[in-house]
Amino acid sequence: MALGVAVVALVATVTGAGDRPPLMPWPASIEQTGGELAIGPGFRVRAEGGGRVVARAAARFEGRLARQTGLVLPPPGPATGPPALAIRCEASGDAGLPHLGMDESYTLEVTPEGAVLRAPEAWGVLRGLETFLQMVTPGAEGLRVPAVVIEDAPRFPWRGLLLDSGRHFMPIEVVERTLDGLAAVKMNVLHWHLTEDQGFRVESRRYPRLQELGSDGRYYTQDEIRRVIAYAADRGIRVVPEFDIPGHTTSWFVGHPELATLPGPYTIDRHWGIRDPAMDPTREGVYTFLDAFLGEMASLFPDEFLHIGGDEVNGNHWDASEAVAAFKKEKGLADNHDLQAHFNARVSAIVTAHGKQMMGWDEILHPDLPRETVVQSWRGAESLARAAEQGFRGVLSNGYYVDLMQPAARHYAVEPYAKGADELSAAARARILGGEACMWAEYVNAETVDSRVWPRTAAIAERFWSPREVSDVEDMYARLEATSRWLEWLGLEHRTGYRRMLQRLAGERHEELRELADVVEPLEGYRRGDTGEYTSFTPLNRLVDAARPESQVARRFSLDVEALLADPDRAAGREEIRARLAAWQGLEGRLRSLLEGSGMLRELVPLAAEVSRLAGVGLEALGFVEEGSVAPEPWRAQSVLLLEEPDERPHALEVAFRPAVLRLFDAAQGETSSPGGQR
Amino acid sequence: MALGVAVVALVATVTGAGDRPPLMPWPASIEQTGGELAIGPGFRVRAEGGGRVVARAAARFEGRLARQTGLVLPPPGPATGPPALAIRCEASGDAGLPHLGMDESYTLEVTPEGAVLRAPEAWGVLRGLETFLQMVTPGAEGLRVPAVVIEDAPRFPWRGLLLDSGRHFMPIEVVERTLDGLAAVKMNVLHWHLTEDQGFRVESRRYPRLQELGSDGRYYTQDEIRRVIAYAADRGIRVVPEFDIPGHTTSWFVGHPELATLPGPYTIDRHWGIRDPAMDPTREGVYTFLDAFLGEMASLFPDEFLHIGGDEVNGNHWDASEAVAAFKKEKGLADNHDLQAHFNARVSAIVTAHGKQMMGWDEILHPDLPRETVVQSWRGAESLARAAEQGFRGVLSNGYYVDLMQPAARHYAVEPYAKGADELSAAARARILGGEACMWAEYVNAETVDSRVWPRTAAIAERFWSPREVSDVEDMYARLEATSRWLEWLGLEHRTGYRRMLQRLAGERHEELRELADVVEPLEGYRRGDTGEYTSFTPLNRLVDAARPESQVARRFSLDVEALLADPDRAAGREEIRARLAAWQGLEGRLRSLLEGSGMLRELVPLAAEVSRLAGVGLEALGFVEEGSVAPEPWRAQSVLLLEEPDERPHALEVAFRPAVLRLFDAAQGETSSPGGQR
Repeated sequence: MALGVAVVALVATVTGAGDRPPLMPWPASIEQTGGELAIGPGFRVRAEGGGRVVARAAARFEGRLARQTGLVLPPPGPATGPPALAIRCEASGDAGLPHLGMDESYTLEVTPEGAVLRAPEAWGVLRGLETFLQMVTPGAEGLRVPAVVIEDAPRFPWRGLLLDSGRHFMPIEVVERTLDGLAAVKMNVLHWHLTEDQGFRVESRRYPRLQELGSDGRYYTQDEIRRVIAYAADRGIRVVPEFDIPGHTTSWFVGHPELATLPGPYTIDRHWGIRDPAMDPTREGVYTFLDAFLGEMASLFPDEFLHIGGDEVNGNHWDASEAVAAFKKEKGLADNHDLQAHFNARVSAIVTAHGKQMMGWDEILHPDLPRETVVQSWRGAESLARAAEQGFRGVLSNGYYVDLMQPAARHYAVEPYAKGADELSAAARARILGGEACMWAEYVNAETVDSRVWPRTAAIAERFWSPREVSDVEDMYARLEATSRWLEWLGLEHRTGYRRMLQRLAGERHEELRELADVVEPLEGYRRGDTGEYTSFTPLNRLVDAARPESQVARRFSLDVEALLADPDRAAGREEIRARLAAWQGLEGRLRSLLEGSGMLRELVPLAAEVSRLAGVGLEALGFVEEGSVAPEPWRAQSVLLLEEPDERPHALEVAFRPAVLRLFDAAQGETSSPGGQR
Repeated sequence: MALGVAVVALVATVTGAGDRPPLMPWPASIEQTGGELAIGPGFRVRAEGGGRVVARAAARFEGRLARQTGLVLPPPGPATGPPALAIRCEASGDAGLPHLGMDESYTLEVTPEGAVLRAPEAWGVLRGLETFLQMVTPGAEGLRVPAVVIEDAPRFPWRGLLLDSGRHFMPIEVVERTLDGLAAVKMNVLHWHLTEDQGFRVESRRYPRLQELGSDGRYYTQDEIRRVIAYAADRGIRVVPEFDIPGHTTSWFVGHPELATLPGPYTIDRHWGIRDPAMDPTREGVYTFLDAFLGEMASLFPDEFLHIGGDEVNGNHWDASEAVAAFKKEKGLADNHDLQAHFNARVSAIVTAHGKQMMGWDEILHPDLPRETVVQSWRGAESLARAAEQGFRGVLSNGYYVDLMQPAARHYAVEPYAKGADELSAAARARILGGEACMWAEYVNAETVDSRVWPRTAAIAERFWSPREVSDVEDMYARLEATSRWLEWLGLEHRTGYRRMLQRLAGERHEELRELADVVEPLEGYRRGDTGEYTSFTPLNRLVDAARPESQVARRFSLDVEALLADPDRAAGREEIRARLAAWQGLEGRLRSLLEGSGMLRELVPLAAEVSRLAGVGLEALGFVEEGSVAPEPWRAQSVLLLEEPDERPHALEVAFRPAVLRLFDAAQGETSSPGGQR
C-alpha cells in the first residue's frame, strides 16, 4: 500500500493530474490542462512544412490511428473545417537524412477544439506524432486525447538499438517492424551488426564470395539494405552498420581465406563464444581488401558513422603465426593489444578516407586514434567517462544488454553518465552522446527477437530521452505495460508470439502450460550456455524461448508480499497472496500428465515441482506471518531443504517468485528488514 | 460422459487408432500403421516432377515447417542420405493454371523411416503437403508425424470462399493470407467479389474513372491482381472474379452515370441493403461498355469462369424509367424478371465471346441461357438440384454464409446435394460442382475478417472435401480447434486479433473484459443492422466486432450441462458447472466500474447484467436438479422474468450460454427431454 501511495503522489507531481497519458518515454515537460480532444471518424490531420518526411509521416499517422482505434477516417477529398491535428514544421524543405545532432524537439498542444504539433525540423514532427498516438486511449466518452501542453526534446542525441543479424539472420520484415518499434519510443539509431563468425549478412558486389559462401544464403541484398535505410530515414532513424574486424570474422574467411591469419580452409562457424580466427594484420593485401570493401559499404550506408567492431580478439591465431611474431618484432609491437591498435590505426585511415567517422567497441580505445572516433562501451559508464576525458565521444551499452534477460528496472537504473561524471568538464560530458540497447542473437531468432527487445527496450529508450529525474520504477512499469500493448499495433509479436509458442508446445493444453510459463524466467546472463550444447542449428522452441525475460506476475506478487510485510494486518492482500500460492502449489499435479507425456516438455517436470515446492513453503510461511508467531526451528530446517536451488537447470529457467517466497520465509522467522536488491 | 465415449468410439472407427492426427478436412481414407516419423533439425524434403509449382511448394513447405516447429532446417547444400519426405509427382512438366476438374488426389505414406507423397499432378502434391504439415505435432518423444497410409481426393471439384472486397476494402495482405488459409484446408476457389454499390475495387485501364471515382482510392491495381492470381495459382486456387451487374452498381455510376437507368449524378453509396440504382438494360451503349470492360477483365483474370452477379435487383429505377417501360413493351417483356433475363442473355453472349463461361446467382437462372452457365445458389440445395435437372451446373452457397455468425456445426450439417438428390440422374448429380462459403462484408473489415472466416470455414471445407460420412460434430469441433491454432502459423489473425481488440477496449483490464467476451456472441443473421445506424464509415471496433461468432466456452458448457442432465449423480461435472455459473454471476459486479467508466463499453452494462442474471437462475436450477426436487411455482414464475430476453440489444450481442441455462431451468421443473436443436 505504501508503494501504491508513492506512485500516485509521483504521478500527481509529474503531471499535475491523476488521469495521465501512458507516455513512454515521458516528455521533458507536460502539463495537463483539463478536458480532452475527442477522436472520432471525422478526424483529419493537416501538415505544413517539413517536406516529404512530414508528408509521409502524416499519411502513416492516419493509417496507424485507424488501425489503433478501429476508426474509419474520411476518404481523401477537400477538407471541411479545421483539422483535428495541425502539424506545423518550421523547416519548409526536405529534411534530408537523419544525422547526429538533428533537432528532435517539438511542442504539442492539445485542447478540446484541436491539437497543434510544432517542430523546427521534420524529426521533431515524427517524435510528436508518436506522442499523440500514444495518448489516444478510451475515455469516459470514447476515444480521446487528454488536453495537454507538451514541450519535449531528448536528453541524449544518440539513442539506439544494436540488432545482431549475424548469429541468427533477421528477415527484412523483422528489421522493419523493429524500426517501427524504435521510432515509436523515439529511438534514433539502428546499429546493425551485419557480420559474425556465424554469418556474413550483407551483399558485397565487389567480393560476392563473402555472402555467397558465408551466409547459407541468408543475407540482405544491397537493394534490401537501401530499402531498410529509407524505411529508417522516414522514421528519423539512422542506420549505423557494423562490420566486426579483425575478430568475429570466420564467415569472411570461407570465401576469402587469404584474409585470415592462419591458412584455411574455413567453414561457417556454428558455435557461440569467442573464436580463434582473426584477420591477418601483417598482410598488406588485407588492407587493400578492406579499403575496397569498406569503400563499397561506405557508399551503401549513408550515415556518417561506420562501426568496425574490434571486440573480443583472443589472439590465439596471432600467437600461432610466425609471420605475426616477426611483424610484431619488426614494428616494435609489445603485445597483441598493440598489434590490434596498429590494425585499428590502418583501418581508421581507410574509414576516414571514405568520409566516415569510425566507431568501435571499448577495445579500440588508443591515444593514437583520431578524436573523431566514437567508442561504444560494453565495460561501463566509468570507462566511457575516461574516454570522454581523453577527447573521444562515446555511447554506453554496458547495462543495456537485453539478451541478458534482466528486468526492465535493472536497465532503467543505468545512467550513461558515470557516478563521478559531475566532475567531468562540460566538454567531456557533451562527448557522452547517449547509449544503445544490445540485442545479441546467440539465443534469439526471428521468432523470439520481438519478445526479447520489447517491451524492455522502451524503458531504456526512456532513460536516453527523458530527464534524469524521471526514474520511479513502479510508474515506469505501469507505463511500460501500456506501451507494450500499444506496440502491438505496429505488428510486433512480443505478445502474440508467447501464446503461439505455448500452443506449439502444449496444443489444446496451452492455457495450462501458460500457468507455468507466467511464473518462470530464462536464466539471467549467459548461464543458458552452460545448460546444454548450443549451435546455430539448435531449435529455439522450448519453454525458455517462449518465457518472458521478466515475469510480471511474479513482479506484482513480490509487491504484494512487500506490502503485506509492511502491514501484516491488511487482509485483502493476504487472501490474494494465499490464492496465488495455493494455485502454484497445485501446478505440479495439474501439469504432470502434460509434461511427462511430451518429449518437448518433459524437461520441465522438475521445474513444475520446484514451483509447487516453493509455493508450499510460501503458504506455510504466510501462516506464521499471519499468526504473528516465529516459525519453529524444525520447520525452518525442513523448509531450507525445500528451498534449495537445484544443481542443474537443463530447462534454463528459474522460478521468478522465488525471491518473494524467500522474503516470506525470512519474515516467518521474524526478519522483516527491507528487501534490498532482491528483485 | 456418454458423449465423450461416443467421440472416442467414432475416432477408433474412422482411424483405427486413438492418437489420431488433427486433420481437417479428414481424408477419404486413412490408416494409422503404428509408430511415427520423428521431425528433427535434419529434416529434408526432395521433390521429383511437378515442375515449378511443386518446386515452389516444396520451398514454401520448408519455410512453414520451420516456422511451425521452430526447427532450423539444414542449410542449402548437397543432400546426404534419403530425404525425410520424398515428393513424387507423376506429371513431369509445369502444371499450368489450376482449373475446374484438376486432379487433386494424392497418397501419403508415412513410416518411421520416412514419408512418400505421390500424386498424379502438382495439385495433389499441394494438398498432400498440407496434410503432412497438419500432422506435425508434439509427441511423447518430440515433434513427429504418426505413421499413416492416406489415400485422398476431394468429394467435390469446386470448393470456394467468396470474399467481399466491395463493401469493405480488403488489402492485398489480407487477401494473400486468406489464400494461405484456403490452401491449408484444401479449398480451391477464391470467388472475389470486386464491385459493389460501396466500392469499385479493380483497376480498369480502359475506363479508369470506374476506380478513380468509385473507390475512395481503395482498389487493386492490375499488377496487384496479377500478383494475387499468381499467389493463388501457386497454391492450387482458382480466382473467379465477380462483377455484379445490373444491380449493386452505384459505384460504377459515379464515374459513368451514362450506364445508369436514371440520370445522375451518383456518389459512392455508404449504406447497406438492396439499393435502387441499376444499369440501363435498354441502352446499346451499356452493352458496348460491358463488352469492352468485361473483355479487359477476361484478359486480366485467366480463370475460365467469370461471375456477373445478377442478384438483388429491386427494379425501382427500372419502374421509374419511361424508356424502360417502352423497351419492355417493345420487346414483349412481361416484367422486370424478363427484362433482367434479356440483359443476362446479352451479357452471356459478351462473356462467351471473350472465351469465358458465365456464372451468376440464382436469379439468372433462365431456360434461354446456355447450359455452360454456372448457377450459384443462395436459395438452397433444392433450387440447385432443379437447376442441375435443367442441365445447368451449380455450386451451393446457401447454408455457408459465414457473415451470419452461425455456429460451425450449422454450416457443417449443410449438404450440397438436396435431400431428394438421390433421385437425380447421375448426370444431374455431376452438375452439382460443390459449394462456396460467403464472407459478405457489411459488418466485416480488414481487421475482423480473419475471425469471421476462420476457423469456421475449415468445417465448411471439410464438408466439400471429405466423404459424406465424416459428420460427427464433436469430432469436428475437436479437430477445428486444433486447426484454428495451426492456421495461426500462416499469419492469420483470427485469434490474436481478439486479444488486441479487447486491449483496445479495456486497456490494462482486458483480461476482465475477456470473461464477458468469451460468453457472448454477435446476434445471428442480419439482426445487427436493426440495432443501430450503420454505414461504411461506422467503426467496427466494439465488443461485437471482437467477439467470436461462436463461443467455445458456452458450447463446452452446454455439453457439460447435457452430460449432467443425462446422469445427474455425476459429481465432477456438477462442480465445474457450478464454478462457471458462480463466476458468471459475479461478472456484473466485477466489470461494473470498467463498463460504466468507458464510453466504448457503457453499452455493455445491460449485457453484463443479463449474464449475471442468467447465471443466477442457472445456479438455482442446478440446486433443484441436484436435490432431485421439482422447483416450486413461485420460483418458476420469478425466474421466467429473469430469463426474459431484453427488448433491445444495442450492443448487438447475446449471451451464448442462455440455451444451457434454459435447459437447466426446464430440468428444474422435471423436464429432462433431449435438447433437440437448441444449440
